[in-house]
Formats: sequence, structure tokens, C-alpha cells
Amino acid sequence: MTTETLAPSTTTASTGPLRREDADGVALLVLDRPGARNALSDAMLAALSGALAAIAQDRGVRAVVLAAEGPVFCAGHDLKEMTAHRADPDRGRAYFADLLGRCAAVMQAIVALPQPVIAAVNGIATAAGCQLVASCDLAIAADDARFGTPGVSIGLFCSTPMVALSRAVAAKHAMEMLLTGDLIGAEDALRFGLVNRLVPAGQERSAALALARRIADKSAVAIRYGKAAFYKQRELPLAEAYHYAAEVMTENMLARDAEEGIGAFVAKRPPVWER
Amino acid sequence: MTTETLAPSTTTASTGPLRREDADGVALLVLDRPGARNALSDAMLAALSGALAAIAQDRGVRAVVLAAEGPVFCAGHDLKEMTAHRADPDRGRAYFADLLGRCAAVMQAIVALPQPVIAAVNGIATAAGCQLVASCDLAIAADDARFGTPGVSIGLFCSTPMVALSRAVAAKHAMEMLLTGDLIGAEDALRFGLVNRLVPAGQERSAALALARRIADKSAVAIRYGKAAFYKQRELPLAEAYHYAAEVMTENMLARDAEEGIGAFVAKRPPVWER
Amino acid sequence: MTTETLAPSTTTASTGPLRREDADGVALLVLDRPGARNALSDAMLAALSGALAAIAQDRGVRAVVLAAEGPVFCAGHDLKEMTAHRADPDRGRAYFADLLGRCAAVMQAIVALPQPVIAAVNGIATAAGCQLVASCDLAIAADDARFGTPGVSIGLFCSTPMVALSRAVAAKHAMEMLLTGDLIGAEDALRFGLVNRLVPAGQERSAALALARRIADKSAVAIRYGKAAFYKQRELPLAEAYHYAAEVMTENMLARDAEEGIGAFVAKRPPVWER
Repeated sequence: MTTETLAPSTTTASTGPLRREDADGVALLVLDRPGARNALSDAMLAALSGALAAIAQDRGVRAVVLAAEGPVFCAGHDLKEMTAHRADPDRGRAYFADLLGRCAAVMQAIVALPQPVIAAVNGIATAAGCQLVASCDLAIAADDARFGTPGVSIGLFCSTPMVALSRAVAAKHAMEMLLTGDLIGAEDALRFGLVNRLVPAGQERSAALALARRIADKSAVAIRYGKAAFYKQRELPLAEAYHYAAEVMTENMLARDAEEGIGAFVAKRPPVWER
Repeated sequence: MTTETLAPSTTTASTGPLRREDADGVALLVLDRPGARNALSDAMLAALSGALAAIAQDRGVRAVVLAAEGPVFCAGHDLKEMTAHRADPDRGRAYFADLLGRCAAVMQAIVALPQPVIAAVNGIATAAGCQLVASCDLAIAADDARFGTPGVSIGLFCSTPMVALSRAVAAKHAMEMLLTGDLIGAEDALRFGLVNRLVPAGQERSAALALARRIADKSAVAIRYGKAAFYKQRELPLAEAYHYAAEVMTENMLARDAEEGIGAFVAKRPPVWER
Repeated sequence: MTTETLAPSTTTASTGPLRREDADGVALLVLDRPGARNALSDAMLAALSGALAAIAQDRGVRAVVLAAEGPVFCAGHDLKEMTAHRADPDRGRAYFADLLGRCAAVMQAIVALPQPVIAAVNGIATAAGCQLVASCDLAIAADDARFGTPGVSIGLFCSTPMVALSRAVAAKHAMEMLLTGDLIGAEDALRFGLVNRLVPAGQERSAALALARRIADKSAVAIRYGKAAFYKQRELPLAEAYHYAAEVMTENMLARDAEEGIGAFVAKRPPVWER
């Protein structure tokens, strides 16, 4: 892994099926196996896992955009790889369990990443591909993008995708996607809260990068405190959530960036954040 | 109870206030006491409980539609029955507690049912009737349907209905319904996520049946895995939810329907599901 | 504190930055430091805390409206007060922790208040001001109102505001507000479920008061049971939530207001609630 090496201007690194380009404090990760519909193969999961681990340690990255090449954002698991393991002595049980564990770890690595992750969704995002979108902090989609959890149509319910999906949208919206397997359009995805914004098709990546650069101009220290606290506090009862969030905010208040930021705000000058 | 006896074509069975018709793998349950506004009387709750228990064991049923006769979908509890028990030595305490327990059991039987349940809402769904809609996995409503939790207007807050309502819609939407007791229209119910789709009044039942038939064409095995997992995982913290869902999906992958479904998908032929 | 003294007609009491006016069973609390953008200073928090404690004990108050004077509903914490405590020997740690604890206590006092609280939002509600809106049971906003959690722009993530915000709106909507710090307009706040209704600017207070009076005409006993149960049951697993809500509703059924309300409904006469 050399992807963590960052130059001041754009650098490009490819780890097989995943391309990374860094510029202006934003890491762009591009799923780059369009011929395989950017499926989350063993290789793709390993590349995502490695890239996220590198970015987590990389102070030069202040926001991440997850995009894809080709007509399909991501079609979920690689059915051919999965099917091949049916020939294993245990009919694939160990492989499937390990695969789903690795996939869930990648999704949770997005949630746990100190930097915000913005999905830039083109084309179709299905199954674990839809889960990727649901797992990102924010999502911008092409106005012709489509989303679905079609596992039910091949006898394999999208049970791990629904973990992310059911935490992003209302229960009946998630259930409709899961039980019918139908693709929903971008307008429904916006209405459900699965994505934040729609843009004309072809502009999703540039719009996501522009949003990422705006977030990269904020205090990375504050975002690190806040993003981690967001996902932790939402699983706590209200009183505990407040107790925890108040502790986090006290620490944040004592960090240099808050002193600088509040001072700059009072003095009406631009802040200079910790790098 | 003989309702579980299913013929290949339509069969009809009536258990007093509830009618059951089966066709094409779909069980249609019809609340059929329009003169009593389909209230959840002791008899109606018993009929629903029995019908759901029978369906849960019935491999011939792959999806359920819950509909109603008359201008009111369901008006909630039977106030006359309840009021009569005020004459009990304990002023009705034991009866009320038992009644609310039986009603909550019916709602949870819908959630626990292996098959998806689709509400087909005509007219007005209030109090525990609104709770029925909220408890179903999916809901299709007439475009003139109305929904409400009006208990506050008779001094009896809709506290058990709100258990289902608050898990279906956003907090402020639930609170507005609960605190005002006002009926909301179908458009608001759609916007809040209480229902999935609106259709012209009079078409809600046929639309729900058509949706149910489409779901009945999917793998019932996959849906059984997935529906149970949906409601369980949403109550778990993220990491536990993923651990649990990955186990469920591994089991699902090893089931015959997943092998058949994925094989059929790869071979571009229609799958033949387990019956 | 003399604010709890209520006359049958309107009374006005001012506790420094907070004004209270009572009429028709509705307590109107007005944030009244427009020159300080109604910031949640130590004095404002103390006034809110005292007013809410008094109202909690006041059987004459059946609903509460929270409004504000001036162009800003509430701009959150008082940065000058906070900054001054950087000179403390501990750099302000003890003060910040205490301040955030007092602020969280006020927010939770709104949630715990027996009476419903309706925000009437004019102008801009930011940071802990946005948290106030999210913490109220209901909210009516001017159609030109704006909402935001801009802490990220001054290096201090809105970690305690997000506790309320993330329980009011979908995850990606909350995250967009928290990570960008951008103000959202009233239409987005309505779409996200952060507010219940929009009215032409200038009418938000009268609309909120009218809604409060309608709620004040309901059974305060029923609302007391129901509001407390709402926030408690939503933190429980489904089965426990039903068990708990059934107990609450049984007690409610045995209270005088339910007997009166159901009797009046059956007899088609207006109910006379407990005062």
C-alpha cells in the first residue's frame, strides 16, 4: 500500500480495482472495474479496506468522495466468486461468513472513518452497492441514478445491506425496497433520505467533490470529534447521549481549533485550522 | 379453525368478523364488521389472532393483504365493550390490561409473521386501526383515506398505537397526530412514510393484491429470513446488527432457494422456489 | 420565581431575558434578548430552567409555546461568555462542562415537561437554538425561517445539538446540516420533519398559540400519560415498549378523564376535563 503518500497537488494511485486521487485535501476513491459492474469482489473489498485504513491515518485528507466508473455504481457482491465456493467441502459456509464479515467491516470502516465520506452515485447502486451509499455520511446522486436491494429476486435477501438501509430511511421505505427488489428512482431516493441531493447526470462527481472541498475547509479536528460522536450517541438513550455528547463537546472546546475558530469568528477573520 | 386449509384456487373462510380469501399464494384478510366500524372487539382480536397463527404455519401463503369492508378501515378498540367492563369489581382494570395485551400481541404477530403483510387502507384508520396500518410491513392507501390517533380527544391517549406509529414515522409527525387527535389525509400519510403508495379510491385492495402477488413470486424462504432479521437488527447497535445479519445471510446463502435463485440468475432462466 | 402565579386571564412575568405570558391555559415563553440574538447565556438558561420547572408544577398550564423576539429565534450559546472562561485556571474546562450540562438539562426539561411544547420559529435558529426547536414536541415556523448547526465553521462541532437533531430527522439530513454548517430553509426543515408546519412570516406565533389552545382543550391528564410514555417507549425494544405502553394506557383508562371523555363521546356531549 502506497496510496497514503500524498503530494500537495493531485496524486493518483491504483490498487487494482480501486483508484485513488487526492487533491485539495479531498481523497477521491473510484470503483474502477466497470466491466464487472464494480462488484465488491474479494479484491475490491481488500482495496477498499486498505484505502480506508490508509486515509484514516492520513492527516492530509479532510474529506472523501466515493465514486465509480461506468454505467453501474456498484452491483454488490460478486456472484461468480460466491458461487465458485459452493464447491468447498463446507458448501461455502466459511467463505460466505468471512466474505460478509469483510464486507460489513468495510461498511463500518466508512462509518468509523474520521473524515466525512460522500457518495457520488451514477447509474445503478444495488444490494451491497446500495449499502455503500447508505453507509456514507452524505450522498449526491445523478438524477437518473437508481437504487435497489434485489436479493429477494435471487433467493438471497439483502440482510446485511438492510442494516445500513434501515438506519438511513423509514421502515416502510426500506421494506418496500427489500421485499419487492424493485429499483427506485433518484427522486424516491431523495424523498426517502437515502441521498441528500440530485444533480444532472454526469455532474454527480464534480458536485460531490465541490461539497467535499467545502467540508475540507472546516476544522478537521471538530469533524473528527463530531462524526464519531454522531454514530455513537444515536445508539444511546437520550440522557446518556447528552452526557456523552457534552463530554465530547467539552474536549472539542478545549482543542486548539475551537479556540482559533471562535477567535477568528469574533475578530471576523478567516480561521487557520490545525493541519 | 379451518382457515388454514388451502385449495390451489380461491377459498373463502369466515371466522365471524374476519373473512379470509386465499388465491395465488396470497391470503386476503378482510375486516368484515362495517356496521361496527371494524372495531377491534374481543371477537375481532380473536379472529385476527387465529388467522395470523394459521397463516404463520401455512406454507401455501406467501404474502398477506389486510383490507376492510365499509367506509371505515378500522376505528380501533370497541368503546362499548370497554365501557361495559367499568362495572367489574376492579372497575375494569384486569379487562383493560388483558385487552391491551391481546391487541399488542396481534400487532406483534403481524411483525413476527414469516410472510409480508400489506395493508390496503380505505376510508378511515384511527387509534388501534392506525396502529394496524403502522404495524404492517407495507401499506397502500386510497387517495381519500384518512389516519388518526384521536384518543386524546376522549381522555385516553393512544399510548399503544404510538408504539407502532413512532417506529414508522418521524417524531414530530407522530406527536402532531397524537397530541391533536386530528385526522391526516392520505398525502400527509405518504409524506410521513406511514404508507408506501396512494391509488385512486376503490383500487387500494386490487393494488395491494397485485403487489402481494409480485412478492409471492419471490423466494418465501429468503423473505422469511429477511423479514425476521429486519425487525430484530434494527433494535441492535450497528456492530451487533452486522454480526447478526451476516449470520442470517450466511444461512440464507446455504438454503436451497439461494442456490436455485443465483443459478437461475446466472443461467438467465426463471427460478423455481421451494414450496 | 413568581412566574408560577397564574391569574385566570393573561398575566405577564419577566425573569430577565425570558418573558412569560399566560392565557387560556397556554403559557407563552418568549426569548427576549434580541440584541444578544437570544443566546443561551447563563442567565437565559437559568430563566428557561426556572420557567420550565414552574410550569411543570402548574396545573393551570395545559400547553406551552416557545417564541422569540427580534430577527433571530436563538443563536445558541453565548460565545463571549464562553470565551471569557478561557482565562480560568483550567482554561474553562469546568465551566464548559457545567454549561453544556445545564443546557442539556433545559433541553431534557422540555422533553420531560408534562405539557406539550410548541416552538414558534421566526428568523434564524442555529446551534443550540436549532436544538431547542428539535427538542420541542411540535414546531411551527415562519416560511422564511432558517435552521443550522454551524459549529463546524468555528471549530466546535454541534455535538450536543445533534443529540436532539438526530432524533428528529433522518441521518443524512442531520449529517448534511452538521458537516456543512449551512443554513437550511423552512421548506427543507419541513421536508426533513424538523418542523410540522410553515405559515407566512409573522404568523408563526399566533399559529402556534392557536394550536396550543386546541391542545389545551384536550385532557391534560391523558397528555401527561402519553407524552411521558412517548419518549420512554421509543428507547425500548418493541415487546418491552408494548408491555410498558399497555400499562400506561390501563392507568389512563382508569383515570377520571378517560371515563368522562368516553362517556361524553358516547353521549355526544362535550367533555369536562379535570383541572
